[in-house]
Amino acid sequence: MQPMGTAQPLGAENDLYQTAATPDITSPKGFTAGGVHCGIKRKRKDLGIILCDVPASAAAVYTTNVFQAPPLKVTQQSLAVEGKLQAFLCNSGNANACTGEQGLLDAFRMRAETAACFGLEEHRVGVVSTGVIGELLPMDRISQGISHLAIQTGKEGHEDFCRSILTTDTCIKAAEVSVVIDGKTVRIAGAAKGSGMIHPHMATMLAFVTTDAVIEPPVLQQLLREVTDETYNMITVDGDCSTNDMVVSMASGLAGHAPLTPEHPDWAAFRAGFAHVSRELAKMIARDGEGATKLVEVKVTGAPDVVTAKQAAKAVVGSSLVKTAVFGADTNWGRIFCALGYSSPLIDPEHVDLAVGPVQLVKDSQSTGVDEALARRYLEEEHVRFHVHLNQGEAEATAWGCDLTYDYVQINASYRT
Amino acid sequence: MQPMGTAQPLGAENDLYQTAATPDITSPKGFTAGGVHCGIKRKRKDLGIILCDVPASAAAVYTTNVFQAPPLKVTQQSLAVEGKLQAFLCNSGNANACTGEQGLLDAFRMRAETAACFGLEEHRVGVVSTGVIGELLPMDRISQGISHLAIQTGKEGHEDFCRSILTTDTCIKAAEVSVVIDGKTVRIAGAAKGSGMIHPHMATMLAFVTTDAVIEPPVLQQLLREVTDETYNMITVDGDCSTNDMVVSMASGLAGHAPLTPEHPDWAAFRAGFAHVSRELAKMIARDGEGATKLVEVKVTGAPDVVTAKQAAKAVVGSSLVKTAVFGADTNWGRIFCALGYSSPLIDPEHVDLAVGPVQLVKDSQSTGVDEALARRYLEEEHVRFHVHLNQGEAEATAWGCDLTYDYVQINASYRT
Repeated sequence: MQPMGTAQPLGAENDLYQTAATPDITSPKGFTAGGVHCGIKRKRKDLGIILCDVPASAAAVYTTNVFQAPPLKVTQQSLAVEGKLQAFLCNSGNANACTGEQGLLDAFRMRAETAACFGLEEHRVGVVSTGVIGELLPMDRISQGISHLAIQTGKEGHEDFCRSILTTDTCIKAAEVSVVIDGKTVRIAGAAKGSGMIHPHMATMLAFVTTDAVIEPPVLQQLLREVTDETYNMITVDGDCSTNDMVVSMASGLAGHAPLTPEHPDWAAFRAGFAHVSRELAKMIARDGEGATKLVEVKVTGAPDVVTAKQAAKAVVGSSLVKTAVFGADTNWGRIFCALGYSSPLIDPEHVDLAVGPVQLVKDSQSTGVDEALARRYLEEEHVRFHVHLNQGEAEATAWGCDLTYDYVQINASYRT
Repeated sequence: MQPMGTAQPLGAENDLYQTAATPDITSPKGFTAGGVHCGIKRKRKDLGIILCDVPASAAAVYTTNVFQAPPLKVTQQSLAVEGKLQAFLCNSGNANACTGEQGLLDAFRMRAETAACFGLEEHRVGVVSTGVIGELLPMDRISQGISHLAIQTGKEGHEDFCRSILTTDTCIKAAEVSVVIDGKTVRIAGAAKGSGMIHPHMATMLAFVTTDAVIEPPVLQQLLREVTDETYNMITVDGDCSTNDMVVSMASGLAGHAPLTPEHPDWAAFRAGFAHVSRELAKMIARDGEGATKLVEVKVTGAPDVVTAKQAAKAVVGSSLVKTAVFGADTNWGRIFCALGYSSPLIDPEHVDLAVGPVQLVKDSQSTGVDEALARRYLEEEHVRFHVHLNQGEAEATAWGCDLTYDYVQINASYRT
């Protein structure tokens, strides 16, 4: 499995940071990582860890699903103490969700054993699980796995960790940028996993963002919340918001600049870099949606307000009919209008324009008469962009998703069998 | 194509009406129907009509999609005059949606030509279209088709009409009951079409309900609204609410009893019969969802309120992951809990029970340890029932949908090509 490439975003923002060609979650100062096979999955790595040499400022956002899994509750308890983490343990193959009292005890045990193994205080350890819902964790295997975790910096630690968190993902997902704060280089790196039960409500999958920036936990928490709304919350694969979704960020503070706040002169650069890493991870998750062959990007401009723009972009990218049409490279733009039309009552139905890539298919809600073969050819590409202009105002939003394919059905009709 | 069977619903309500073994939209006194091939589709019938000997009390509910198609606007204008209709024309193969000024002119022309052909006032004609969005109607073919409509009572008129309204449907959909009002037999019959862009927002497909009951337009409108909420609005196929959805009812008043109102002693019977026809049509639409192999029924009981019950039932039946699991006969109940968990923040996550048919899989949100092979065998059946008990209150709701299959992808990846 190769990591997916990190494309440059459009706009002037990308002057504020440098993207790294080979992302590495251990690249920010102070971080190490590892991953092993402990026996939850048959063969592949299923237990991973991120460690920090020092207590790192930490922040997290969690799924809004009411069946929030026990490990998320344990992580919340850890963060509540002082907002600092030194280790984050993640297993894949079993979500430890809908597992009652025993599930909660197991999550606490994962935390306790990780703390004991690495000589940390329990409240400086976070835990998370992903995989099948409703089955108890094989705790003996996890205990053994924790003791076998080999911790490394660089490519090996990074890849071992990235692999250990995957479920039906087909590739590892990572991104990294560097920014300059007070004249010092600060790194921001991230790793994530998808790829089913992905839908925009709060955090919608697992993502880990490390940085050596100096930043207090409440500032990091606020930033993470804002960026999550623009990135992870703007992707959808299948409309299902999981019980275990979480985004977590750890900042070691080892870069040695003045603490970051929105008032810091280099805040814009840090925010842009942090958002870039999150956006790239979000797009990789969308592109690697179960069974997907294409990344679909829907940009809505000219909306009366941001909420309408977001609803419209997410409705189009989430529509099963649009997703199958993209899979079939069918320029059935009526489906896009159908989705726009149920996304919000605030949309003016008379003046909507639509471009499929470079092809202007619709102007003022009617066909432009352009040769649809042009659009069909464009839809054969792997990254498909729709641009909807509502001609109502200045607000805009972008959402990402993927096509709906035979393989999505195949993967999910036989996930456990 | 054979019409689908009309099963008896559970509960005491079905003592109030008799179901007809061979439903017929022309069975209520005063109605005739017909359907022809006029050339919008390649071969199959594509233009149908329901006629009434007298001006019938009429009621309709329409899609909430902002791109509401022109024919719906024309029908609304007709109904606004006096709430009576004598003819309803429907074409399939082209939705006349996103067609601008010309689309509206075409819909008015359909109405005018139907009125002229059958000697009716224009405001006593309703029109609707279903099919591809964004293309202008071939009006010459429709004009010719109108003049060729052969109007009949009985099986032939019924089947010609039912066939003429279909798009990707695989079978005609009809239901009929009789009820006794003031000692007289009153018939209520319905015909409908699905089967893509089906999602619960207001009316979600096309359905036509005829009756010879005596009932004033405002009373019929109120009843249609209520029943639509319990039936058509509780089905989903793919989450896409179309631009053209409509449910329309016409009551000839020829049964000759005292006018029906909620105060009439036989109101309960009429309401139950009307709801039965609507519910059966809704279930047939769900069962015949694009590519579907199974009807999925989700009943939620013990909810704190009806809104929560409806949201929960619809979330489960609409979940792509649940739908693919049903297709694969996989007892992956975590997906059902995942869907319940994002349906409403009011659900108590600790005390949810789940039965798959006769098999109690989950009690108090944890596996009962029952042999899942039993549930897997049950999931092979064609009508799959999930029963979710929330143990929070007395409210309940039922939703219907279908499985998500390879054929759904196939149909929609190549709908127009």
